[in-house]
Amino acid sequence: TPSGVPLGDPERVEDVGEFGLIARLHSLLPPCGRPVWVGPGDDAAAVPGPGERAWILTCDVLVEGQHFRRELTSAYDLGRKALAVNVSDVAAMGGEPRYAIVSLGLPPETETSWVEDLYRGLGDEAALWGAAIVGGNISRSGATRAEGQSFVDVFLLGEAPREELLTRAGARPGDELLVTGTLGDAAAGLFLLHHPEVSPSEEGRETLLSAHRRPRPRVREARAVARSGLASAMIDISDGLASDLRHLCEASGVGAEVREESLPLSPALRAAAERAGLAPLEWALGGGEDYELLLAAPPHAVGALQRAVREAKGVPLTAIGRVREPESGLSLLGPNGRRELSPLGWDHMRRKA
Amino acid sequence: TPSGVPLGDPERVEDVGEFGLIARLHSLLPPCGRPVWVGPGDDAAAVPGPGERAWILTCDVLVEGQHFRRELTSAYDLGRKALAVNVSDVAAMGGEPRYAIVSLGLPPETETSWVEDLYRGLGDEAALWGAAIVGGNISRSGATRAEGQSFVDVFLLGEAPREELLTRAGARPGDELLVTGTLGDAAAGLFLLHHPEVSPSEEGRETLLSAHRRPRPRVREARAVARSGLASAMIDISDGLASDLRHLCEASGVGAEVREESLPLSPALRAAAERAGLAPLEWALGGGEDYELLLAAPPHAVGALQRAVREAKGVPLTAIGRVREPESGLSLLGPNGRRELSPLGWDHMRRKA
Repeated sequence: TPSGVPLGDPERVEDVGEFGLIARLHSLLPPCGRPVWVGPGDDAAAVPGPGERAWILTCDVLVEGQHFRRELTSAYDLGRKALAVNVSDVAAMGGEPRYAIVSLGLPPETETSWVEDLYRGLGDEAALWGAAIVGGNISRSGATRAEGQSFVDVFLLGEAPREELLTRAGARPGDELLVTGTLGDAAAGLFLLHHPEVSPSEEGRETLLSAHRRPRPRVREARAVARSGLASAMIDISDGLASDLRHLCEASGVGAEVREESLPLSPALRAAAERAGLAPLEWALGGGEDYELLLAAPPHAVGALQRAVREAKGVPLTAIGRVREPESGLSLLGPNGRRELSPLGWDHMRRKA
Repeated sequence: TPSGVPLGDPERVEDVGEFGLIARLHSLLPPCGRPVWVGPGDDAAAVPGPGERAWILTCDVLVEGQHFRRELTSAYDLGRKALAVNVSDVAAMGGEPRYAIVSLGLPPETETSWVEDLYRGLGDEAALWGAAIVGGNISRSGATRAEGQSFVDVFLLGEAPREELLTRAGARPGDELLVTGTLGDAAAGLFLLHHPEVSPSEEGRETLLSAHRRPRPRVREARAVARSGLASAMIDISDGLASDLRHLCEASGVGAEVREESLPLSPALRAAAERAGLAPLEWALGGGEDYELLLAAPPHAVGALQRAVREAKGVPLTAIGRVREPESGLSLLGPNGRRELSPLGWDHMRRKA
């Protein structure tokens, strides 16, 4: 029923989408007297930790057939990525990762060498960011591969000084919008995996495939931003710029405009888009899994933020637009004028139109 | 190939089993300078928390078709249980639960009312133990129910005074073995679900079904034990007494003997076994999901421990056997003498003989 849900049919998860459902589910929870500094609905949760520090809790899962396919991803890269996407969520709050535990779901016929490679990837990515993997369990996800997909669910505990915590809320009209690195490379890499006939240069291909397979969370950049105290809001771009900008704006109660010409696109992305006959903009706005940071900050702070990130040996921080009054909505300024910036990004659960 | 793995065939997870594989996987991890008080291989991990307190990290997942079936379990009970099994792991270390996050995998066609009931269960169980659910995410686990099972993965952070932490290691030859409550009721309840033709009394049936559907983690009992400082080792019985006693003995480097006549069996279990024509002992030794506590303590401490648990309004604490020298192995003393106590319990991944 592409036109909607028939009367009398029960509402399903795909009708509501992931983000709408999470908000509704958390409204069902009974109140709890325990102190919570940042609750559900942000990149991660934050609670009182040792001293005046916040402990940051997050989890994210990669499911076979949904987030990865064994034919297209090595077990080692999958392990790196499963940890990296969680590190990115902790970084987006201004924190650093500390301890991880891993929940694996596997069909029992899975080869142990595959699982060992997965763990090598998890371990190397954790070591890169100074985090310890302190536990985990393995569950049967089906009697055979046909009956159950593998999944890799990582729970990560991070830490930040309480006063440096950054959330999605806090952006104010007039703030500049900034992003780290370049946008859309991971989506272009995924496209190339599925379209081997499209071949940009070997080097460009490697750049894009690597962005998809081996995302690098922006921990140094995020810490430099958090320490500076200059940003008003931050989020990591896991669902695409258009979608995650919407999350930031909804949490902050603001609108925004993005300048198309300011979006940082890699030469590799431009070349691949040209070969594929596609607009690079779609990847940059709608492609998921970039794991770059999107932040808002007052205009006077932009220079200092860019310097702080550069001094931390981070990737460039590019101004791409402005925070506006809420009634302005979200818009994209292009060569042909202003148009609505629709949420092209991923809602993993929603029924596709 | 029931006789083993043919030469040249790659080793699979089912050949090694969950517990052997986890130990091997963690040996692959690079060393990490971060302080870890209790690492992989126990009920949970423990790391330095606020002040002189330990923070306890654990996760456990319930997978559709493996740990639950929607026809046999309500979403509400499933939510309660998904949280309770994690609370039990925190309790087994002597801790109390504080913060939880929830990772759900769902086919998009899942009815939202089912997910809401699940969250009501999660929320009520968390509130019962004073824990807050502070975040979570929902991922697509398959395009349709046929293609992907649901799973409910809970990550729980608990807390305990460092000096009160209890682990599986520490049992010494000569220690008494003690268990809370009664054993095997959950396994008997699961049996009754699958065999509706076996009908003990209505009351007995409810007792056993409830033990299976709504396990009650022994938090009060565990805290009383931990506060007393009298126990040498503790574990929760999630995989069956025989299996979890083996875990405790392996971690402690000891053997043990269990007295068959001392095992605490409920009248409901005895009645159901009689009706089914089965030996209640199999359920008590091999049945999973009891979530009772098994602990070791010096003989002189048994009376004080039993008093402490009674004063905490806990379930009874029953002495069931003794810790022995490692070379004695694990044995069961029955009316017909001594026999080896084989690991009847569940290894969720291992190929069945």
